[in-house]
Amino acid sequence: MDSTITRRTERLADALRRLARREARGHIAKLLARLRPGDVAFLFRSFTVAESRYIFSILSADFPEAAGEVLTDLDAAQRMSLLEHLQPEEIGHILQQASVDDAVSIVDSLPEEQREPVLALVDLHRDLDEVQTQLAYEDDTAGRIMDPEFFALPESTTVHEATETIRRQDDIGMILYLYVVNDEGQLIGVTSLRQLLLASPETSLGELAQRDLIQVHTSTDQEEVAELAARYDLLAIPVTDEDRRLVGIVTVDDIVDVVTDEATEDFYKMVGTSDDELLYESRSARVAGIRLPWLLVNLVGLLVTGYLLERYQSQFDKALYLLFFVPVIMGMGGNSGAQTSTITVRGLATGRIMVVRGRIWKYLFQQAKVGLVIGLALGAVVFLIAMVKESDPTYAAVVAFALLFAVTLAALSGAVIPILFQRLGVDPAVASGPLVTTSSDILGILVYFALAGLMFKYLIP
Amino acid sequence: MDSTITRRTERLADALRRLARREARGHIAKLLARLRPGDVAFLFRSFTVAESRYIFSILSADFPEAAGEVLTDLDAAQRMSLLEHLQPEEIGHILQQASVDDAVSIVDSLPEEQREPVLALVDLHRDLDEVQTQLAYEDDTAGRIMDPEFFALPESTTVHEATETIRRQDDIGMILYLYVVNDEGQLIGVTSLRQLLLASPETSLGELAQRDLIQVHTSTDQEEVAELAARYDLLAIPVTDEDRRLVGIVTVDDIVDVVTDEATEDFYKMVGTSDDELLYESRSARVAGIRLPWLLVNLVGLLVTGYLLERYQSQFDKALYLLFFVPVIMGMGGNSGAQTSTITVRGLATGRIMVVRGRIWKYLFQQAKVGLVIGLALGAVVFLIAMVKESDPTYAAVVAFALLFAVTLAALSGAVIPILFQRLGVDPAVASGPLVTTSSDILGILVYFALAGLMFKYLIP
Repeated sequence: MDSTITRRTERLADALRRLARREARGHIAKLLARLRPGDVAFLFRSFTVAESRYIFSILSADFPEAAGEVLTDLDAAQRMSLLEHLQPEEIGHILQQASVDDAVSIVDSLPEEQREPVLALVDLHRDLDEVQTQLAYEDDTAGRIMDPEFFALPESTTVHEATETIRRQDDIGMILYLYVVNDEGQLIGVTSLRQLLLASPETSLGELAQRDLIQVHTSTDQEEVAELAARYDLLAIPVTDEDRRLVGIVTVDDIVDVVTDEATEDFYKMVGTSDDELLYESRSARVAGIRLPWLLVNLVGLLVTGYLLERYQSQFDKALYLLFFVPVIMGMGGNSGAQTSTITVRGLATGRIMVVRGRIWKYLFQQAKVGLVIGLALGAVVFLIAMVKESDPTYAAVVAFALLFAVTLAALSGAVIPILFQRLGVDPAVASGPLVTTSSDILGILVYFALAGLMFKYLIP
Repeated sequence: MDSTITRRTERLADALRRLARREARGHIAKLLARLRPGDVAFLFRSFTVAESRYIFSILSADFPEAAGEVLTDLDAAQRMSLLEHLQPEEIGHILQQASVDDAVSIVDSLPEEQREPVLALVDLHRDLDEVQTQLAYEDDTAGRIMDPEFFALPESTTVHEATETIRRQDDIGMILYLYVVNDEGQLIGVTSLRQLLLASPETSLGELAQRDLIQVHTSTDQEEVAELAARYDLLAIPVTDEDRRLVGIVTVDDIVDVVTDEATEDFYKMVGTSDDELLYESRSARVAGIRLPWLLVNLVGLLVTGYLLERYQSQFDKALYLLFFVPVIMGMGGNSGAQTSTITVRGLATGRIMVVRGRIWKYLFQQAKVGLVIGLALGAVVFLIAMVKESDPTYAAVVAFALLFAVTLAALSGAVIPILFQRLGVDPAVASGPLVTTSSDILGILVYFALAGLMFKYLIP
């Protein structure tokens, strides 16, 4: 089935591309009419900028509602590149037809300077109060990602009345949970369509509702919403405001996006950049500007290492062969530290590693043990290589011990540093990388030269 | 609300820990009775091994059904550490009460040697055909993660009969979609409870059903299932076998887990290890064994770099100061390559980067441009540092150009190498790291010495 779907989308992408080249507007519109918005967004991934602009112009003219959904489903960069190209009037036309949550995410991704003119225009067509209210919530909160178009009924409603209401309304989407509110609009409980079927028609929703329910506040971080949904296997979580009024729901399909985006963000952070890159994909200087600070921090560490090399250069004069293992001592510490710090940062993000007494010490101890085993193994390998090279056991032992030390220390600091940052309230994903690498580079080289110094002093006079 | 939930779980964890220390079995059972399985699993994260074993023994004796759900919700390592401690009889007792999909995931996480005795025992209590059928599907496929307990009705059923059936059955969970099958059990369409409410009682489900629906095969990769759910905003996807019979559904709450796990797997792979580590957390040698191969591949690259340093050592005799920038040339290439390769690997995993002609060249060109801008910026910084250090513009230019080259090349190879691996069918997350770092180390040093050689030959004779 699935490969059928994949093959079908590939064929469609080819067809659309060919039609776009021929500027066959009518044919494209006919094809678009038969597709789901999710498919269209997926197809856009394989289009060039020119192709997507042309096809999107047809979509937004003929199917403005679908255009809103497609825009929401696109990657940030592609969305930006399409929006940049549109006139405020065209964006307004799309917003007018889009659902509130799609409208929020579209306005949200407009550059600051474009927002005002677009919103001014839209006001003429549609009451955008809801959109603006929602845009007032902080980024990455439940309030911002929620869908304000949910289905709730007063507690006094009877099962019979509720069923009739649902029969009459056809503009509501899928009803996952049936929320029950009091006269003030405050959330008091939840029930389901299935329970409506089971209950007698005269029962009131207030009697039927289950009152112990998981809910979040508009200011709750989206990561916490995702965590709660996963913990309780919920398909939707109701969102309430300061007055405990129900103002929206976050559905689990939005949570899938949150989980994906948060993981992507962490990948970017781990190498000292940010997913803002995605917005400015085609502006090299801006992307370079995002990546540079982290590289500069690393540069400082490497300059210190260089300073140490130069300072202890006299030892190379005595034993030129010492130079051979400098890259190994530097690099292996960094690599081993990267392993532990990546695992630790991810563990902290998923909640697998909890900064709780007892458990945290055990974790650090385990990582140190693993580092030691790796250090011993790599030390043994390098000892053999050094013996083959110089057949001098003292020299080989110096290299092996320096490596053992650098690797174990890096593995341990790869675990300690992220946990320390977490405790201090600093994002461990951002800060750990350079510190782990730099400290293991510098300490590795220091130990290497210290051991070599001792060797020259006492063993090879 | 949310922080209330968090505070409440913290208080509960403290209470349970205190009761466990006093071995207050009765009190613990009373407390557990009031908690949701998701809460219990969450609380376990903050327990030590001893605490979790004690509390779990009470849970599995008094609430075997919840015990199954808690086990499923735990991290792999914690699940293993609890299962290891249990007798086959106790595991059998839990499996007997668990839902089929929980039973599958529990048996699945047993070590090979424990599986047979447990399954043999369980057979006595409960028909485990369903569990064993499901275990026969490949890891990470729709067949393995699906829930075989879904709700489907024959196409000849009328709306009235369907409603009555739903009223009578109380062991079915939440009905997201109402699947419609023909006499052979083949999936022919889908409808919903809401449509049952809207339709006239005599309509047959066959007439009501929407026939164009997204479905997957038991062998479909779980990542593809997640992709489809996200693309079409589905809450559940039906799974069919070779004969197109409906055999299960994958619900979106399982998909959230898939997305989280796949991202975690990629984090591990990027630093040359695997999430198998999580299973063997407490066995250092085993974890070290998982991490070592990648480190050894890196070691080879670093030995080559060391060889180059030694080989061109004579240049250091002419100009000792060249040594100072060796770490910078090596490290900055590696860092800049890590940035691009991480972004590229993640982009390939999320489908943002599609290996499609036209688009892929544009991506590579953009990344090369960013690399060049970064190389120019870092080159300028290093030029100034070299000037301050030696006040020799020729030398400073050699360092700056070598760095520019190393950084640009690393940024480009960080984009090219993962894409190449993807095309060759090799997992880009696994293979890219060492190759990107090693190639940029080696080429950076080669260019550095080549430029220095030219400098000595023509400029500073």
